[in-house]
Amino acid sequence: MLGCDKALVNGEEKRCIDLSDRGFQYGDGVFTTIAVGSGIPQFLDKHLDRLQRDCARLALPYPGHGILAEEARRLSGASSECVLKILLTRGTGGRGYRCPDQPHPTRVLSCHPRPDYPFELRDGGIHTRLCQARLGINPLLAGIKHLNRLEQVLARSEWNGDEIHEGLMLDTEGCLVEGTMSNVFLMKDGRLRTPLIDRCGVAGVMRSVVRGLALEQRLAIEEARITVSELYQADELFVTNCVIQLWPVRQLESVKYEVGPITRMLASRITTLIGEELVKICRV
Amino acid sequence: MLGCDKALVNGEEKRCIDLSDRGFQYGDGVFTTIAVGSGIPQFLDKHLDRLQRDCARLALPYPGHGILAEEARRLSGASSECVLKILLTRGTGGRGYRCPDQPHPTRVLSCHPRPDYPFELRDGGIHTRLCQARLGINPLLAGIKHLNRLEQVLARSEWNGDEIHEGLMLDTEGCLVEGTMSNVFLMKDGRLRTPLIDRCGVAGVMRSVVRGLALEQRLAIEEARITVSELYQADELFVTNCVIQLWPVRQLESVKYEVGPITRMLASRITTLIGEELVKICRV
Repeated sequence: MLGCDKALVNGEEKRCIDLSDRGFQYGDGVFTTIAVGSGIPQFLDKHLDRLQRDCARLALPYPGHGILAEEARRLSGASSECVLKILLTRGTGGRGYRCPDQPHPTRVLSCHPRPDYPFELRDGGIHTRLCQARLGINPLLAGIKHLNRLEQVLARSEWNGDEIHEGLMLDTEGCLVEGTMSNVFLMKDGRLRTPLIDRCGVAGVMRSVVRGLALEQRLAIEEARITVSELYQADELFVTNCVIQLWPVRQLESVKYEVGPITRMLASRITTLIGEELVKICRV
Repeated sequence: MLGCDKALVNGEEKRCIDLSDRGFQYGDGVFTTIAVGSGIPQFLDKHLDRLQRDCARLALPYPGHGILAEEARRLSGASSECVLKILLTRGTGGRGYRCPDQPHPTRVLSCHPRPDYPFELRDGGIHTRLCQARLGINPLLAGIKHLNRLEQVLARSEWNGDEIHEGLMLDTEGCLVEGTMSNVFLMKDGRLRTPLIDRCGVAGVMRSVVRGLALEQRLAIEEARITVSELYQADELFVTNCVIQLWPVRQLESVKYEVGPITRMLASRITTLIGEELVKICRV
């Protein structure tokens, strides 16, 4: 991310990383991107839980919720609205791909300005494209928000300008997986559906928030393989991540969608939930 | 790699990299690993050609053979035997996955001690395993030696100790692709066969050297999908990369192989070729 305001590397204010860090050499690490509002990192526990799960999948030592939460608050407290990125790597050392016997992981927390997306995108919806770049299928890495992100970089390079706001990605077998930076949901015949993340894709924190809200609202939700034709026939379509929260999709290629009632209800519930969480934290 | 003796970052002696470098954030870059003997980087032109091709695949600006060759010689000249790694990234900048409009690529050249593999491995052959970790299939990235190397890291973490020297990897459909750090060849009924690198895997420089030597020796060579049962039934089996050159495989799991005549001939031709190249360079 451009415009890093401030960063902590293993607790010290720094802007650089050792050349031999395995994050740089091999993408041997994980990360998460957190929205900070009113100086409070939103859904922090969920982000830390996900980091811990992702570390376990890669046998990466996890530094612990305590130190990450403390540093997250230290860094984001100075800025009322920003984006906080937490990145964990296996640290330096190990010859070749072989992991060091006793890794000293690197933890990087960095603070960035909130992206300047026009606010009306949340209300009026976005224009999307179907990316040519596909996601390779590998259950070994599926779900993990790891540092191997070339597929997303190539997909995002397929368009320029501000007319397209997100690209949707299929796997190499042609099933819908996610957006380049978001998860995707659709409504069809009263059921909320989102792609299974068991073969590729990122299990986003906002995706799990939306799942929780759907259950709370007694809305049927299914994780499934979703085809392109199903995508085009959806009644409602939206994408989510922790920075944008929820963007309704108004157009995908030449197909248009209404911003429907379930989309509006979920977007509103997310906003409420964030407000409630903020009140709870401020009272503690 | 551990034990980096010396490094140049964009031509300057440095040991660290900006936190916001896209190589660190996304693995948005490529690399190559070069053996240096008698102070001369071996097969340098082939390595630079491959870097240039890989950059083109990722739309990464290539710095040019001239500057890389000059810096490679500057760095490796001080050390008669070492490993030289050249790593190119899309540099800093770009918000999220979106590439900067005018990227300023980062080039890193680093010098490392030669790994201390026992010399008898070259002669007597190695013990290998079949890795559980599979390679995802994605033609978009196939062949490129890019910085997204988590699959290799996970495969290499499946064993410890010095009894196993390399692990062979299959793709998610069960076809043989490569070793964790090498390409693989087998002889069967007088034909040399190596996996196609069109769906995943790295098109190694030593792989192309061996192909050239096979053609020169009028040895039939085929790139093909190779199954596990074919692997187990091979008459000869060997792996290659630019640092190890060629290691015969003596054992894969519980199956044993002879170090055969074609393997020995190719190993010897590689040594001769490197010697000839050295003489040519020294005469210039």
